[in-house]
Amino acid sequence: MNFKMMGRFIAQILGIEAFFMLPALAISLYDREVPAIYGFAASLLVIGTIAGGLGFFCRKSKRGFYEREGLACVGIAWIVMSLLGCLPFYFSGEIPCYVDALFEIVSGFTTTGASVLTDVEAMSRGLLYWRSFSHWLGGMGVLVFLLAIAPSGGRGGGFTVHLLRAESPGPNVGKLVPRMRQTAMILYLLYVVLTVLNIFFLLIGGMPLFDSLCTAFGTAGTGGFGIRNDSIAGYGPYLQNVCTVFMLLFGVNFSCYYLLLIRQFRSVFRDEELRLYLGVVAVSVLAITVNIRGFYDTLGETVRHAAFQVASIMTTTGFVTTDFDLWPGFSKTILLCLMMIGACAGSTGGGFKCGRLLLLLKGLRRNIRRVLYPQRVETVRVNGRTVEERVLENTNAYLAAYMVILVLSIAVVSLDGFSITTNLSAVLACFNNIGPGLDQVGPTCNYASYSVLSKLVLILDMLAGRLEIFPVLVLCSKSTWRRR
Amino acid sequence: MNFKMMGRFIAQILGIEAFFMLPALAISLYDREVPAIYGFAASLLVIGTIAGGLGFFCRKSKRGFYEREGLACVGIAWIVMSLLGCLPFYFSGEIPCYVDALFEIVSGFTTTGASVLTDVEAMSRGLLYWRSFSHWLGGMGVLVFLLAIAPSGGRGGGFTVHLLRAESPGPNVGKLVPRMRQTAMILYLLYVVLTVLNIFFLLIGGMPLFDSLCTAFGTAGTGGFGIRNDSIAGYGPYLQNVCTVFMLLFGVNFSCYYLLLIRQFRSVFRDEELRLYLGVVAVSVLAITVNIRGFYDTLGETVRHAAFQVASIMTTTGFVTTDFDLWPGFSKTILLCLMMIGACAGSTGGGFKCGRLLLLLKGLRRNIRRVLYPQRVETVRVNGRTVEERVLENTNAYLAAYMVILVLSIAVVSLDGFSITTNLSAVLACFNNIGPGLDQVGPTCNYASYSVLSKLVLILDMLAGRLEIFPVLVLCSKSTWRRR
Repeated sequence: MNFKMMGRFIAQILGIEAFFMLPALAISLYDREVPAIYGFAASLLVIGTIAGGLGFFCRKSKRGFYEREGLACVGIAWIVMSLLGCLPFYFSGEIPCYVDALFEIVSGFTTTGASVLTDVEAMSRGLLYWRSFSHWLGGMGVLVFLLAIAPSGGRGGGFTVHLLRAESPGPNVGKLVPRMRQTAMILYLLYVVLTVLNIFFLLIGGMPLFDSLCTAFGTAGTGGFGIRNDSIAGYGPYLQNVCTVFMLLFGVNFSCYYLLLIRQFRSVFRDEELRLYLGVVAVSVLAITVNIRGFYDTLGETVRHAAFQVASIMTTTGFVTTDFDLWPGFSKTILLCLMMIGACAGSTGGGFKCGRLLLLLKGLRRNIRRVLYPQRVETVRVNGRTVEERVLENTNAYLAAYMVILVLSIAVVSLDGFSITTNLSAVLACFNNIGPGLDQVGPTCNYASYSVLSKLVLILDMLAGRLEIFPVLVLCSKSTWRRR
Repeated sequence: MNFKMMGRFIAQILGIEAFFMLPALAISLYDREVPAIYGFAASLLVIGTIAGGLGFFCRKSKRGFYEREGLACVGIAWIVMSLLGCLPFYFSGEIPCYVDALFEIVSGFTTTGASVLTDVEAMSRGLLYWRSFSHWLGGMGVLVFLLAIAPSGGRGGGFTVHLLRAESPGPNVGKLVPRMRQTAMILYLLYVVLTVLNIFFLLIGGMPLFDSLCTAFGTAGTGGFGIRNDSIAGYGPYLQNVCTVFMLLFGVNFSCYYLLLIRQFRSVFRDEELRLYLGVVAVSVLAITVNIRGFYDTLGETVRHAAFQVASIMTTTGFVTTDFDLWPGFSKTILLCLMMIGACAGSTGGGFKCGRLLLLLKGLRRNIRRVLYPQRVETVRVNGRTVEERVLENTNAYLAAYMVILVLSIAVVSLDGFSITTNLSAVLACFNNIGPGLDQVGPTCNYASYSVLSKLVLILDMLAGRLEIFPVLVLCSKSTWRRR
C-alpha cells in the first residue's frame, strides 16, 4: 500500500469536507444556535488538525496507484470522512450517542436516508442543513468532486480511472470524454444544474428557501433525509409531484443528459437501461394504483401516492408521502422488489442497478440458449454492442457477493428479535441506500430501536452498498495492507 | 423435437408409475377402503390406456436425443407423471379439487412435503402409502430408475447422460463408474439399502410397520409427508433421533457412500462439500440451541429439537417435532438461510445445494483476488481439482435464475394478501422442496388457504426446484418445439 499517497489524498478529502461545513456553520451563526455553533467549530478544529497533519507528513510520492490501492483508498476515505463528518452531531449534543451520530452521517453520505432520530424537527437548522447536504456531497461522490477540481497535472491517469471506477455506481463507467478529469467536471456541472432547477421548481411552488435547499439536496443525492417528521407528506400535491419528477430524473444515467446536450437523441431513446428503468416504473405505478384503489379519495391522489412511492423507492431516495406499510401485501412486495433493483447505473441512485439487472437477464437468456444450441456462439449485446465476458462475470459475482452480504447481515440483525419483515426490509433499505423499510423500520418509524451491534452492521451495509461492495471487501483483505 | 422417442419414453415412465401404484392398491384392498380402491383402479385404467397408446404409436426412432431434448423430455415426463399420479386422490374423492390433488402429488414427487390437507389422519391408508411413496420415487428420480432397469443396449450414451444430468441434483454429475447405467444401478442399490436400514431402526424403536414404511419413504426422499397431523412430534425421542440421523444421511452426496464401499476413506474425509454440509449443520444446531434455551425443560430436549429441525430444513425434508414458528427471530432466520442452502449435490435433498454454495463462495474469493492481483492467473479448486470456468459460470447463472424465479413467484403469491413472511417462506419452502414455511404456512398450518393461482405458481416452483430450473426454462422456449 502506498501510504504516503493515501495520506495526502485523505487530507484533501477532509479539506473538502471542512469547506462544505462552512455554510452549515454560517446558518448556525445566523440562527444563534449555540450548541450547533460549538459543534461545528470543534469539528472543524479536529478535522483541520488531522488534515493538516496528514498533509504535512505525507509528501508527494512518485509511484501511482494500483487498482486495489485505488479501491482501498476509496473505502478508507469514505470511512474517515464519516468518522469525522458525524462530529458536529456528537459535539453539539443533539445526537448524544456517537454510534447514532455515525449512523446518521453514513446514512447521509451514502444517500441512504435512514434515520435514528425520532424528532427531526427538534434539530437545529445548521445541523439539518449539514445532514441534508451530506446527501448532495455523497450522491455524485466526493472523490469525483476532488477529481473535478484537482489541478490537471500531478497524477497519473491510472489513479483517476481507478478512483472514479471505485466510487461511481454501476457495472461499467462510461467515459463521456477521453479525459477523466473533464468527465468528472461535466458530471458535476450537470448535477449542479439539475439541483438548481429542482430548487427553482420547489421555490415557485411556495416552499421556503431553507426547505427547498434541503429537499433538493435529498432529491439530488437520492438520499431522502426530510427536515420534517412527516417527510414530504405535509407539502402540497404540486411540491410532491415536483419531487416525483426530480427523483426520477436523478435516477437516470447522467451520460444520457450529456448525450442530450450534444444532440445524440437517438442513442438516448434507444438506451436499453433507460427503457428498462422507465418500464419498471410505469408497470409498478400501474400495478400499485390498481392494488390500492379505494385507499384514497380520488384516482388522482392514488396515482400521485403510487408514483411518488415508486419513484422514491426505485431511485432509492426514500422520501415518503404516505404510510405505505398500511398498503396491501402485493404493493409492499412490489416495493421490496424495487428496493432490490434500484436506479440506473451512473446516476446518484443506489441498489443493484437497472444496468446490472439487464446484464443479468441477458446473460441468463444466453445461458439457456447455450443449452439449446451448443454449437452456436452466443454473445450478449446491450445497446447494439457486444458486452465483454468479463463484465458479465463481474455482474454475476456482484450478485453473489450481494446475496452473501445480505444473508449474513440479516442473520446478525435478527439477533435483536424484531420481525423477519423488519429485518429483511431494514437490511435491504440500508444496503441499497434507500432509507425507510417496512414494519418496525417503516415510513412512520426509524432505526433508533436497533442495538449498537445491528447499527454497526447496517452502517457497514450502507457503505458497502454505496461503494458497490468491492472496495469494502478489498479493505478486509490482509494483502492490501502489506508494504511493498 | 424427437416426438416419437419422447412418446416411447413417457410410456415407459407411466408404466413404472402404474407398477408402483399396485402396492398402494393392495393396501386399499386389504383395508377394504372402497373409495381408495375405486380411485386406484380408475387411475390405473387411465394411465394404462395412455401408456399403451403412446407405446403403440411411438415406435423406436433411429436418432438419439440432443441435450435440449433430454432436458425438455425430463420436464415433460415429470409433468405428465404428476398430472396422472394425482388421479387416485381425485377419483377417490378424498381430495375433491383437482388442483389440490395435483399440488399434493407434485409436492410428493418433488419431495417437497408441502400439503393442502388439513386432516391427514382422515385419509385412507392406501392413499397415504401412495402419497409417501411418491417421495421415495421422486427422491432418487424415476428416470434414474428407468435407466437402472432398462436393457443395456438400444439407447445412445448421449441420451442417458443428458437425462441423468437433467434429473440428478447438483452442479455436476459425478459418474461413479464409466457406464451410466451401472452408475444408476449403484445409486439405486445404495438408496434401497439405506431405506431398509431406516425402516429397520424405526421398527426396533417400536413404530408400527405401516408408519415405519411411510416415515422411511419420507426420510429417504427428503420429502417430509407425515401420516399424522403432528408429523413426527407424537413419536418418542428415540424415533425422532433416528429420523434426525437418517435425514442427515440422505442429505449426503451418494457418491460418498460408494467411495466408502470401495474403501476410499481419505477422499470422503477430505470432501469439501461434505465438510461444509456438516459444518453448517453443527454451527446451526449450536446457534439455535443457545437461542432457544429455556423453551424446553432439559438441555437434551432442546438439542434434540434443534438438531431435528436443522436436519429437517437443511436436507429439505420438512418433518416437524415442534412448532418452530414460535422460536425467536434469530432461529427462524437461521432456518430461512438453511432453506436456501439445502443439502449436498447428488443426494436426494433439494435447495441450492452445498456444492453450489461452495463454488459460489470460492468464485467470489477468486474475483476479489483478481482485483488484488490482476497479473496472476487464479483458478478455483475444489477437492484439489481445478473447476472448469463453464461450471462456475453455470453456478452463477443458476443463482441468477434462482433469484429471478423467486422474486416473480413471491410477487404473484403476494396477491393473496398474506404476510410477507408467509409468502417469502412459502415460495422458499416450495422452490427448495422443503415443505413447511413460517407464519401461515408454518409447521402447524398448511397451504390450503392459498388461491388456485398461487397453488399453480407453487406447483411450478416445486417442479423447477426439483429439476433445477433449466429443464423447466427449456420447456418454455419456443425453439424446443420445432420439428426438425
